[in-house]
Amino acid sequence: MTAFTFRVDAANGTARAGAITTARGIVRTPAFMPIGTQGAIKGVHWRDVKASGADIVLGNTYHLMLRPGAERIAELGGLHKFINWPHPILTDSGGFQVMSLGELRKIGDDGVTFRSHLDGAVVALTPERAIEIQDLLGSDIAMQLDECIRLPQERSELERAMRLSLAWAERCKRAFETAPPGRALFGIVQGGDDRKLRAASARAVVDIGFTGYAIGGLAVGEPQHVMLDVIDTVAPLLPVDRPRYLMGVGTPDDLLEAVGRGMDMFDCVLPTRNGRHGLAYTRFGPINLRNARPAADPRPLDPESRCPAARDYARAYLHHLVKANEMLGAMLLSEVNLYYYQDLMAGMRAAIAAGKFTEFCAVTREGWERGDLAM
Amino acid sequence: MTAFTFRVDAANGTARAGAITTARGIVRTPAFMPIGTQGAIKGVHWRDVKASGADIVLGNTYHLMLRPGAERIAELGGLHKFINWPHPILTDSGGFQVMSLGELRKIGDDGVTFRSHLDGAVVALTPERAIEIQDLLGSDIAMQLDECIRLPQERSELERAMRLSLAWAERCKRAFETAPPGRALFGIVQGGDDRKLRAASARAVVDIGFTGYAIGGLAVGEPQHVMLDVIDTVAPLLPVDRPRYLMGVGTPDDLLEAVGRGMDMFDCVLPTRNGRHGLAYTRFGPINLRNARPAADPRPLDPESRCPAARDYARAYLHHLVKANEMLGAMLLSEVNLYYYQDLMAGMRAAIAAGKFTEFCAVTREGWERGDLAM
Repeated sequence: MTAFTFRVDAANGTARAGAITTARGIVRTPAFMPIGTQGAIKGVHWRDVKASGADIVLGNTYHLMLRPGAERIAELGGLHKFINWPHPILTDSGGFQVMSLGELRKIGDDGVTFRSHLDGAVVALTPERAIEIQDLLGSDIAMQLDECIRLPQERSELERAMRLSLAWAERCKRAFETAPPGRALFGIVQGGDDRKLRAASARAVVDIGFTGYAIGGLAVGEPQHVMLDVIDTVAPLLPVDRPRYLMGVGTPDDLLEAVGRGMDMFDCVLPTRNGRHGLAYTRFGPINLRNARPAADPRPLDPESRCPAARDYARAYLHHLVKANEMLGAMLLSEVNLYYYQDLMAGMRAAIAAGKFTEFCAVTREGWERGDLAM
Repeated sequence: MTAFTFRVDAANGTARAGAITTARGIVRTPAFMPIGTQGAIKGVHWRDVKASGADIVLGNTYHLMLRPGAERIAELGGLHKFINWPHPILTDSGGFQVMSLGELRKIGDDGVTFRSHLDGAVVALTPERAIEIQDLLGSDIAMQLDECIRLPQERSELERAMRLSLAWAERCKRAFETAPPGRALFGIVQGGDDRKLRAASARAVVDIGFTGYAIGGLAVGEPQHVMLDVIDTVAPLLPVDRPRYLMGVGTPDDLLEAVGRGMDMFDCVLPTRNGRHGLAYTRFGPINLRNARPAADPRPLDPESRCPAARDYARAYLHHLVKANEMLGAMLLSEVNLYYYQDLMAGMRAAIAAGKFTEFCAVTREGWERGDLAM
């Protein structure tokens, strides 16, 4: 069993590039993790997820524990085998979706109980059960259970949730001690948009000690500057030799900003969700295929893309598929977006290694702003 | 420009195997044509349509004329370029869908007017316009405009529609005289479930003279024996040196029966529609992934299939995807079914060439009946 390791190979300002080694393969950082909510990346074949350049995907514990169930997946050989993705998987703890999807939630010191959004069954999620589920799934990187609350929020409430998350962090760490070797557990910094709470949370989580550290509770609707301010507060307090994961983020611009501030890992539904809604991310900025403009446009989205879907089809065809609600439109645009996100990460990694991260960001933003009229 | 030719290479009883050569490639017969209704095979990438073994696909003139429009597709270089499928395409005439989808239909000698189901616009489809549209699309095989009516139906009504279809057949043939070389026009035999009308229609259509002949007006809900009776009446009246296309058919068993009666070409939505609904066609008969039975079944659908989706995923995973309404479930099962249909056709072609068509049908049906419990 390969041990779980993290290595920073290059730094450029506060941005850094490196690699996480897991028993199931290497994750190049900064890394973007596509989200396989219910054991599938919506609209994309697993072979295309890999071909896009993804080293790791995220599985949602909340969804998988409710359907088909963690024990069922374990009986079937674990999540990797179940979904036929032999590469690294990170699972969240389920906490975030309990808050957003679970009904009749009741949070106590011991954990959270809720009614399943699928069948109304009452389910309990404790720190120990969150770790057990992730163990049953066989995830390479497990996350502690935390309480993620919406912003804006009263300071007292932010502090309560932050302290509760810390208590759960300790319990998760204890529960994880019996985990098989080669797997990692990450702690999560909470504290909302309050700098002092964030700093206190970061110090306390680091004191408990984890293989990696995440910033949670962002990408919940706050303005970008609030998110960046939290990163500026937290990132310097995290050990340089551990991966740093910004949960639920974000737009391509968010990724440039966050990598520039020293974050290493990201996950977000935007590439696939926006792809399903007709939006393509490209070097020339986002292109809305639902608009009339591409209706007669014979050009591909980007003839120089690595992505077949971005090269092989006219914008007019993609527009037609989106307007006609053809599944293939969602499939092709989700693929385009996954490739774009991975290419953006690869570009950042190469730029950091070359000591040209600032230039890379400038050129990338220029492309987005110029658009593709002169193409 | 390669001329359009048809060659029968082998016959076994009334079943025959051969090849249609078009300017865009060879179609091995008996051939199954997946349906790209609106310029896409629902849920399947074009590369996988090709990989499944399809030599030719069908495009629906009705859908494409309404959206994005035949002139728009012509401006963009024709249907092959628009959808990025450089291989042969057959287009129907639009008549069938005008009858099933168009609103406020008015049929006259000159053609049919209807309201678009998309935006209510009044659209006229004449025999000449049906040919013009198929020319704009650039289809390799165009179909005459016909009137396809539901069964059961009064004989007088069947006869009226059959005579009208004959009149339109003549006009379509004239309109097609200016078509570019290398393209073919097929005539359509109508007459419902009335043998005399079918025989009269077949003789008259053959008198007009087409490159290929279709039997239309079936697969509209009639029992299989009615369909087979029509084929038994019509097929012997069609010239042996022209391809024979049974429109809208069918189930795997329908295909065995119809090929055995000398039919060469087929199209049907079943493999993709049933795939979207959770049904997989296999050597062991259809498997309903929506049922509870496969929920914990680690076996793939068929470890010996050529189709990656049939080999690489547990039935439990496919069941989960179907229950969770994940797009990937529809995508994988549609692919499984397209491969199964193509493999069935390939099996029939090989069996006819080997003079073992009857044995092939028996072995195939045995597999369906045995199921996969002993697998």
